[in-house]
Amino acid sequence: MVERARTGDPRAVARLISLVENHSPQLRAVMAALVRHTGSASLIGVTGSPGVGKSTTTSALVTAYRAAGKRVGVLAVDPSSPFTGGALLGDRVRMQEHATDRDVYIRSMAARGHLGGLSAATPQAARVLDAAGCDVVLIETVGVGQSEVEVAALADTTIVLLAPGMGDGVQAAKAGILEVSDVFGVNKADHDGADHVVRDLKAMTRMVERDPGDWRQPIVATVASRGEGIDELVEAVHKHQVWLAESGELERRRRARVRGEIEAIALGTLRERFADLHGDERLDELAEKVLLGRLDPYAAAEEVVDAVS
Amino acid sequence: MVERARTGDPRAVARLISLVENHSPQLRAVMAALVRHTGSASLIGVTGSPGVGKSTTTSALVTAYRAAGKRVGVLAVDPSSPFTGGALLGDRVRMQEHATDRDVYIRSMAARGHLGGLSAATPQAARVLDAAGCDVVLIETVGVGQSEVEVAALADTTIVLLAPGMGDGVQAAKAGILEVSDVFGVNKADHDGADHVVRDLKAMTRMVERDPGDWRQPIVATVASRGEGIDELVEAVHKHQVWLAESGELERRRRARVRGEIEAIALGTLRERFADLHGDERLDELAEKVLLGRLDPYAAAEEVVDAVS
Repeated sequence: MVERARTGDPRAVARLISLVENHSPQLRAVMAALVRHTGSASLIGVTGSPGVGKSTTTSALVTAYRAAGKRVGVLAVDPSSPFTGGALLGDRVRMQEHATDRDVYIRSMAARGHLGGLSAATPQAARVLDAAGCDVVLIETVGVGQSEVEVAALADTTIVLLAPGMGDGVQAAKAGILEVSDVFGVNKADHDGADHVVRDLKAMTRMVERDPGDWRQPIVATVASRGEGIDELVEAVHKHQVWLAESGELERRRRARVRGEIEAIALGTLRERFADLHGDERLDELAEKVLLGRLDPYAAAEEVVDAVS
Repeated sequence: MVERARTGDPRAVARLISLVENHSPQLRAVMAALVRHTGSASLIGVTGSPGVGKSTTTSALVTAYRAAGKRVGVLAVDPSSPFTGGALLGDRVRMQEHATDRDVYIRSMAARGHLGGLSAATPQAARVLDAAGCDVVLIETVGVGQSEVEVAALADTTIVLLAPGMGDGVQAAKAGILEVSDVFGVNKADHDGADHVVRDLKAMTRMVERDPGDWRQPIVATVASRGEGIDELVEAVHKHQVWLAESGELERRRRARVRGEIEAIALGTLRERFADLHGDERLDELAEKVLLGRLDPYAAAEEVVDAVS
C-alpha cells in the first residue's frame, strides 16, 4: 500500500490517511516505511477568518501550482470549507475541476473542538502526502482560536488572508497575526476598503523592528474568485521559501515541527495509558486511600506515574 | 508549620497554600502530613457570570456560616473578585468585616488562562483549608469557559448564580447549567425580571426526567447585598449535603474528585519531565533522524516515552 501511495494512487493515499486518523496499530509500520520518502514537499498554510475566501484562494493556488506541473495535496481542516462539503454550491462547483485531476489530492480532516484546532493527525497526514509525491501541500484552516498558531507551527509558509468589510478586520486580528504570517493576502481586492486593509497591514509590518536579512511579510492583493493576484501570491510564497532555505530558517522550523510532533505522539501514548487505567481498580484503590487519609495525592500520583511508565 | 496551620494560624495556612501554588519540593512532605486531617470540610462552589453578585453572595454566606459558629475558608479564583482586590470600593468595604475574623480564611488563587479556569493548585489549596479545620470552604469562580465545570468537579455542592437583566441570561447559560448546578441562586431578586428568571429555571429543571430519589435543583431568590434569602440558600445547600450523604453521591463525587486530582498531578509530573527534556540534545537528535528519514516519528516518540518514564 505504501508503494502504491508513492506512485500517487489516490485510494492508497486515502487508506494511509485513514490509518493516521484512526490511530491504527498498523500506523507504526506504515510511518516507518514512509518516512524516508518525506521532506521534499512544501507545506503551505492558508488561514484567515470565515468569509475571507480561504477555499477560493486555496482552489486558485491549486490551479496555479498545477499549471506549473506540480503535484498538489490539500488538507482542509476548516469545517465550513467547500472541500469538506460545507459550502455554497457555487464554491463546490469551482472545486470540481480539481476533483477529476489525478495529480491533486484533496482531503478534509476532522477538526479538534469547535474552534477548529488541528487534530494531531494533521501533521501525519501531511507526511503521507509528502511521501506520496506531492510537491506542495496546502493546509487550509479557519483562523479562529488556536488554529492559526498551530498551522503556522506545521507549515513552512503561512499565508494569512484578510478581506475588506470584515468588521474591525486588521485590528481584531492584530493580536497574533504578525507572529504567524509569512505572507499576507488581501482578498476581495475589488471591494471597497481593500486599500485600507493593505495600508493598515503595511503600517503594522513596518512597526516591527527587524535585523537585516529578516523576513518582512509581503502583502498581496487578490481577487481569488477571478484568479487575479494569484501568480503574485505564488511568487511571494516562492520568495519566502528561497529565504527559508538560504537563512537556515527552513531547517530550524522543520526541526521544531518534528520535535513538537514527537512530543505530541509521546504525550498521546501516555494519555492513552491513563485512559486504560481509568477502568482500573488500582486508581480506585489509590483514591480510596487518599479519601481515608492514608495516602497523600502526590504519593498516589507517583504510583500512577510508575504504573503508566 | 502543619501543626500551626491545624490550629488555624493564618500565616501558617498562607505559607502552606503558597507551597502548593509554587509547587515547592516540600509539598510532598506537607501533603503527607496533612492528608489524614482532611475530609471533614464541605466544599461549596459559587459560580455565575460576571455581575450576578458572586462575591456579595459569597460574603453573605460567610456571614451566615460564621453566625452558625463555623470556620470558613474562601478560595476566590475570579480575577475580578473583590477578594482578589479587583472590585468596587463598596464591595471591598463589605468584605472588610471578614478580614479581621480569625475564623475566616480568604485566599485568592491565580486563574489558569484568561477564561478563569481553575489552576491545578486549587484542589490542593482546598485540602489545606480542610486540614486547617475549616468546616466550609467556599470556592468562588467566574462562570465562563470551563470553570463552572471544573468547580462542579471540585465542590460537593455547586451554587450557580443568575440575576435578571443579564441579557439572554438563562437561555445563554442553558448549555451546561443543569449539569453543573446543585442549587440555583437568583440574585438581585428585587430587580425587574427576577420572577422571569425563576420561572425559566423552574421550567428548565422540570423538563429533566428524574428517577425517584434523584436531586432536583432548588431555586432560591436572594438579595445578597441586603442578606435577603441567604438563610434559605444555606438551607438549600444543607439539604443537598444531606441528600449527598444519604444517596451515596458524596462518596462517589469525592472519589471521582480524588481520582481526577491524582491524574492531574501525575500528568503534571510527566509534563515536567517533558519540559526538562526540551533542553535535552536527545530530542534534537531524534528530530534530526526523523528529518533525515532514518526514524519515523512514532519510533522517536517511543524513545521519548521511555526517557521520561
